[in-house]
Amino acid sequence: MTYDTLLYAHSGGVTAVINATAAAVIDAARQQGCRVGRILAAHRGIAGVLREDLFDTTTLDAAALERLARTPGGAFGSCRFDLPHDDGGAVMDRLFAVFDAHRVGWLVYNGGNGSMDAVARLQAEARRRAHPLQCVGAPKTVDNDIVGTDCCPGFGSAAKYLATSMLEAGLDIASMVGAKGSVFVMEVMGRNTGWLAAATALAAAGDADRPPHIVLVPEAAFDEEAFLARVQAVTERLGYCAITVAEGIRRADGSLVTEKSRDPRGYVQLGGAGGEVARLIHARLGYKFHWAIPDYMQRAGGHWLSATDREQAAAVGRAAVEYAMQGRGGMMAAIRRVQDAPYRWDVVPVDAAPIANLERALPPEFLAADGLHVTPRACDYIRPLIAGEFVQPTIDGLPDYAGFAGARVKCRLPPWA
Amino acid sequence: MTYDTLLYAHSGGVTAVINATAAAVIDAARQQGCRVGRILAAHRGIAGVLREDLFDTTTLDAAALERLARTPGGAFGSCRFDLPHDDGGAVMDRLFAVFDAHRVGWLVYNGGNGSMDAVARLQAEARRRAHPLQCVGAPKTVDNDIVGTDCCPGFGSAAKYLATSMLEAGLDIASMVGAKGSVFVMEVMGRNTGWLAAATALAAAGDADRPPHIVLVPEAAFDEEAFLARVQAVTERLGYCAITVAEGIRRADGSLVTEKSRDPRGYVQLGGAGGEVARLIHARLGYKFHWAIPDYMQRAGGHWLSATDREQAAAVGRAAVEYAMQGRGGMMAAIRRVQDAPYRWDVVPVDAAPIANLERALPPEFLAADGLHVTPRACDYIRPLIAGEFVQPTIDGLPDYAGFAGARVKCRLPPWA
Repeated sequence: MTYDTLLYAHSGGVTAVINATAAAVIDAARQQGCRVGRILAAHRGIAGVLREDLFDTTTLDAAALERLARTPGGAFGSCRFDLPHDDGGAVMDRLFAVFDAHRVGWLVYNGGNGSMDAVARLQAEARRRAHPLQCVGAPKTVDNDIVGTDCCPGFGSAAKYLATSMLEAGLDIASMVGAKGSVFVMEVMGRNTGWLAAATALAAAGDADRPPHIVLVPEAAFDEEAFLARVQAVTERLGYCAITVAEGIRRADGSLVTEKSRDPRGYVQLGGAGGEVARLIHARLGYKFHWAIPDYMQRAGGHWLSATDREQAAAVGRAAVEYAMQGRGGMMAAIRRVQDAPYRWDVVPVDAAPIANLERALPPEFLAADGLHVTPRACDYIRPLIAGEFVQPTIDGLPDYAGFAGARVKCRLPPWA
Repeated sequence: MTYDTLLYAHSGGVTAVINATAAAVIDAARQQGCRVGRILAAHRGIAGVLREDLFDTTTLDAAALERLARTPGGAFGSCRFDLPHDDGGAVMDRLFAVFDAHRVGWLVYNGGNGSMDAVARLQAEARRRAHPLQCVGAPKTVDNDIVGTDCCPGFGSAAKYLATSMLEAGLDIASMVGAKGSVFVMEVMGRNTGWLAAATALAAAGDADRPPHIVLVPEAAFDEEAFLARVQAVTERLGYCAITVAEGIRRADGSLVTEKSRDPRGYVQLGGAGGEVARLIHARLGYKFHWAIPDYMQRAGGHWLSATDREQAAAVGRAAVEYAMQGRGGMMAAIRRVQDAPYRWDVVPVDAAPIANLERALPPEFLAADGLHVTPRACDYIRPLIAGEFVQPTIDGLPDYAGFAGARVKCRLPPWA
């Protein structure tokens, strides 16, 4: 049996450029000529592989592929599913049965920390079984928290969106300054790390009088009194105060400032930290307040992509196909920063096993000593990642997006219970 | 004494294109040649006039004016201040003292319903006093609720931002559909009207399966049971449901679904309706939920302006100067829709007095019969207003905005108590 099928799957939260990676994988695989017989994509990540729920990408012509590459969200669907450790190998058996049924010789898995664990384990399992599968990881996450890569595709565009949003909302609130003082709080994603919150600091361009005046990140314990004192000082000086709050901020005792819900696997959905902080300010200082929660908008802003991020998303997709073809399964296509200014980068393979399930936090040198802002070094790191614009074609004033509307692959196995 | 000063002031919530109006006013006044001696701008609206807090715009060169015109927020500051009726004329006396002290012969007042009341009353007062002042209104509000104009500058850009946001967040949530069903709620501005909420319907392009699946507006009473039944039906069909919630939605008894705070003047700050609705769905139907509150971001999105809106903002500014010069005080520069498709419009003068303090709601033919969406006619009305993009110059990946940093005019009167 010839294992000449390449399978693409993504997992976890989607981004504004994840489809750019998907399109690059498909395009790079097509360029392999007859070596790659079929290019499939899993519907809803690894869970779709389990269900043998696969799409055939053959119907995507060049124009459709170009449109797919600039459409936010994950066109093939995503999932939150970790490979179990305690199922006696049933999931692993099923996955390899699906690989066999569809002659999958190459798997490009596009995801975050959890997905890199899957890449490492699938490749180890393939070796154990002497199976030809080459499984390669392509990083993606707006949280920018994957170890082993200088940055993560998806982050640059979300960072650009949030820095722009803080810049713009800051101009608005500065116009509306009244006698009594007002605050604006923007809650951003990032889970346990403050990369996205730090990105909003680019809006201030190093000027302490410009928004955001305070940036709260999970890496610095939330000290209510020190925070309120700063809010008051800024508001008395400028008439207003603009604050970025990462969704995952914690108190010194490690407790989250907010937790929205927790699923049976223990996956905590964060949300509400911005509202909590805004209400705290109002209760303690009496200021008028507004808060914004960009939520999904921050990771789906295809109308305002970082051109750099989009290029990197495509590059890791192309590299992942290349590594898979070279038999370098178990690797992740990582972005390496070659030079800061002018910014230069390339893509290199790194072993997925040691980085799986880790989480990269903001390093101490990116945090202001008082824990209420980030440093110029943090801005220097993020600045090149938001550079460049990508002009979306529009129809009637809205971006001309298109997802995937192709055919399902016929199942060859009994349904997965 | 020659009244050869033109004064510009804006009031109320700012928009992404209010500075386009300001810049057009300044430019049009300059083109009057020596007839206009000085062009001043009030710091923080009519309250700034009272305080004799005025800027001299002479320092704005052509490049600075071009940058100002594409910068969101109100460069000269805004205020929420209504002319009192019960102060024995003290405020009116002071305003005319300031006009006299600075030889103000023309006042362009850029604002919403309340500002048009000020335009009408100031002009009536000028006539009573046989004062040469010509006061003309230029409309602006993201809420689109001013009577007498087909649309309001500021609305088109906010509408484009929100429709794009719903389109993009909708692609994201569609990717993340899980077994249990999930909902996404986006809370939008609009105060007592549903124009901005209606704009998000453009994202669905008439397809009942595309987000937003439900649009809640203040003009249709919020019926909890009918709403929940629809959320459930959509979620069972598609796996998810995307919902737009106007901040000002009310129950059949007229009570607001939420009210954040109320200031001493009775001005109610709305906020939280989206969270209320999301929590209601979770409590009653058990679905996972996300909600977004774009807040100031929706009215400050200079990176994604409607080119049509920007043109209209400049056009009402130019027309207001023209009407003032022609001695047509008491008028508002209104936008008239000449033709639907292809869209054609012009600017005409309308009397500010009969429209002051009114509020234009969505007409019944724009509301779906079940009160849970808007009609294709609503979309046909809004579509041309979001058309066209404006490319912002950027520096390091962020829009190159600049507010106003000019000189204050020397005070000639005793301070206002």
